[in-house]
Parts: sequence; C-alpha cells; structure tokens
Amino acid sequence: MRDVFHEQLDAVFGDLATICGQVETAVVQATKALLEADVEVAERVISSDEVIDRARVEVEEKCFELLSLQQPVATDLRVVVAALRMVTELERMGDLSVHVAKIARMRVPEVAVPGEIRPTVARMAEVAGDMVHRVRQIIVDRDVSAAIELGRDDEIMDQLRRASFTQLLGDDWAHGVEAAVDIALLGRYYERIADHAVSIANRVVFVVTGTDPRAVEA
Amino acid sequence: MRDVFHEQLDAVFGDLATICGQVETAVVQATKALLEADVEVAERVISSDEVIDRARVEVEEKCFELLSLQQPVATDLRVVVAALRMVTELERMGDLSVHVAKIARMRVPEVAVPGEIRPTVARMAEVAGDMVHRVRQIIVDRDVSAAIELGRDDEIMDQLRRASFTQLLGDDWAHGVEAAVDIALLGRYYERIADHAVSIANRVVFVVTGTDPRAVEA
Repeated sequence: MRDVFHEQLDAVFGDLATICGQVETAVVQATKALLEADVEVAERVISSDEVIDRARVEVEEKCFELLSLQQPVATDLRVVVAALRMVTELERMGDLSVHVAKIARMRVPEVAVPGEIRPTVARMAEVAGDMVHRVRQIIVDRDVSAAIELGRDDEIMDQLRRASFTQLLGDDWAHGVEAAVDIALLGRYYERIADHAVSIANRVVFVVTGTDPRAVEA
Repeated sequence: MRDVFHEQLDAVFGDLATICGQVETAVVQATKALLEADVEVAERVISSDEVIDRARVEVEEKCFELLSLQQPVATDLRVVVAALRMVTELERMGDLSVHVAKIARMRVPEVAVPGEIRPTVARMAEVAGDMVHRVRQIIVDRDVSAAIELGRDDEIMDQLRRASFTQLLGDDWAHGVEAAVDIALLGRYYERIADHAVSIANRVVFVVTGTDPRAVEA
C-alpha cells in the first residue's frame, strides 16, 4: 500500500491529467472555431478558460499542502515542484488556445486562414492537439518511452512553421498582410503549445526516473 | 540578526536581481541589434543566453536546498516557490530577447523594422526594457508600491501593440508581408517580456505582503 504522501501525489497527477484533457478540448475547439469561422465555438473556448485557471489554483493549493504537511525531501520534493510547474504550463497552453480562438473570432464571418495555407495550419493544429492528447496519456501512464518519443516530434512542428513562412513570404501569396500576420501569430501559438507539451513530457520522465532527459524549462 | 533560512533566501533574491540585470542587458542589446542591423550584437545576445540559463539552474538548486534542508512552511514555503517561478520567468525573458536578436540577424544587412514603424517598435522595446530595469530594482528593494505601479504600465504595451497593428494593416503600409510578419512577432515578444515583468513584480508583492495583488501566473 502506498503511503499518504504518494496517495496525495497520485491525486495531484490525476488532476493534471484532467486539466490536460481540458486543454486538449480547448486546442481542438479553438482550431474548429478557426477553420470554420465559428464564433460560438470561439466564445466557448474563451469563456471555458476560467475552468482551467480555477483547476490550476486547486492543484497549486494541493501541492503547497503536500509540501507543508508532508515535508518531502530529495526526489519527492522535486516531483511536487515538477507538478507545480506542469500545472503552470497547462494553464499557459489554455491561454494560447484562447489566443487562437480570439483570432478566429476577430475575422468572423471570414475564415482567418486562406484556403491555400489551410492544409499547413490544419496540420500544425493537428500536431499540437495530438501532442496534448498524448501528453495526457503520458501523465496517466507515467510512460517514459512515449514521453521521449514526444520530444522528437517537436521537429515536425518546426518544419510546418518553416513551410508556413515559405508560403506567406512567397511571390504567390495573394492574401495580403492581415492574413499573413494572423498565420504567423497562429503558428507561434501552436508552436508554443507543442513546446509546453514536450516540456511536460520531459517532466514526467523526471518524475519517473529522477533525471531530466535534457535541460528543460518552460 | 536574520536566521539561516532568511539569509539564504536573501542570497537567492540577490541572484534573481543579478539575473534580471542580465535580462535587461539582453533586451537592450537585442533591440540595438534590431534597430541598427548589428549582427555582432545579435550574436552576442544569442550566445550570452547560456549564462542566464546556467544562472537559472544555480538558483533552482539553491531553492531546492532551502526547501530540503530548512523545510519551510506557510509563507516561507510560498516565498521559495515564488523564487523558483521568478527565475523560470527571467529565463523565458532571456529566450524572448534571443528571438528578437534572431529576427535582427535574419534581416542583416537590412534593418528588419521599416522607418515609418520604427518609433512604435522602438517605444515597445523601450517600455519592455524599462519594465525589466524597474523590476530588478523592485526585487532589490522589495518595493511593493513600485511593483503595483509596474502592473498598471502593462496597458501602455497593449496600446503600442494595437498601434503597430493599425500601421501594419493600414492602406499606407508599403513594406510587404515579410516586414509585417517580423513586426507582429517582435510585438508579441516584447509584449511577453512585459507580461513576465509584471508577473515578477506581482510575485514580489506576494513575497513581501503574503497576498497576491491579483491572480498571477506566467
């Protein structure tokens, strides 16, 4: 049987997985709002962010309680601090989804993403959403090999971002400055969501193995 | 005389102030590289970031030592965790300065910022640099009223960012997509630097008073 500290820590990681699921919904729905110019979906993403913010505060309180009452040292201490950092990153990922939803809302009834660059943006969104989906499962299973694999997929996002710039800055771009600025910022938001997913996966590796797969920071 | 815990905590806050000074240099120099298309200055900002990264790791280790050996509870515990968060934010501000320097380097020998929008970008950079400068002093002095004042100045950055979009998206914009995309991303980077400065200032308020001036997160 696990001791009180580890039971409470498991509860915290359960909460992190739940929040990660909420973030996944935010990313997927923000993308839907973006690609379909759906203002209601955009509004829902924006207003739901407060659920994630509240959940973060609760996890932080649980972590402080764990630190205060259980006084963990060595690896246990670092695991609680890792949980605190993971929840901060999840909250940021929620904020970034809100930024995507706000660009969608700003352009309604137009779609912010012109047809010819839609496949690239849709793919970025898909990669980001998939990374969030997988990191939730990585938190649940404490799956080190899946976490290390996720880190490698970061390169795909970099390639997509470069591809989007090639399109935006090419002679064929006929959609003007506004659409280009939207796409550049959207690319930045999806890239940051992916970065945070990788960082969280690395923290799971640390939680399980006690060593960082690389120097990670959010 | 202060006890060992508070002496060590003071040392950590001294380190935070030092790192904040390094971040200020990074912001100022990245801006210089940007506005003067100075590739050497850009390279220096990019390579110096590793100094900030190393300093962050050292502060983190000191914080873990404090938590492990001194086992602080209640407010003391929260102050150490606040210090851990502050150093994470300072490191991000360094990264954001590197992003600015990389845009500068990419456009050399051209200046990435066209003349007519230069005053707006220069003002954004100045506001961000000034906020970093002030937050360093706020860390040194634990100055609550200066910290609260800093929070109010965030609005200036929002106004500048809106002004930059008005210029980019106006009919008079004659510098094409590439420059517009650069300016939009630069605006985002300076805005994030300012956000982090406000967040750090709020954490100082918490460290001194035990209460957050508002729900803050980085």
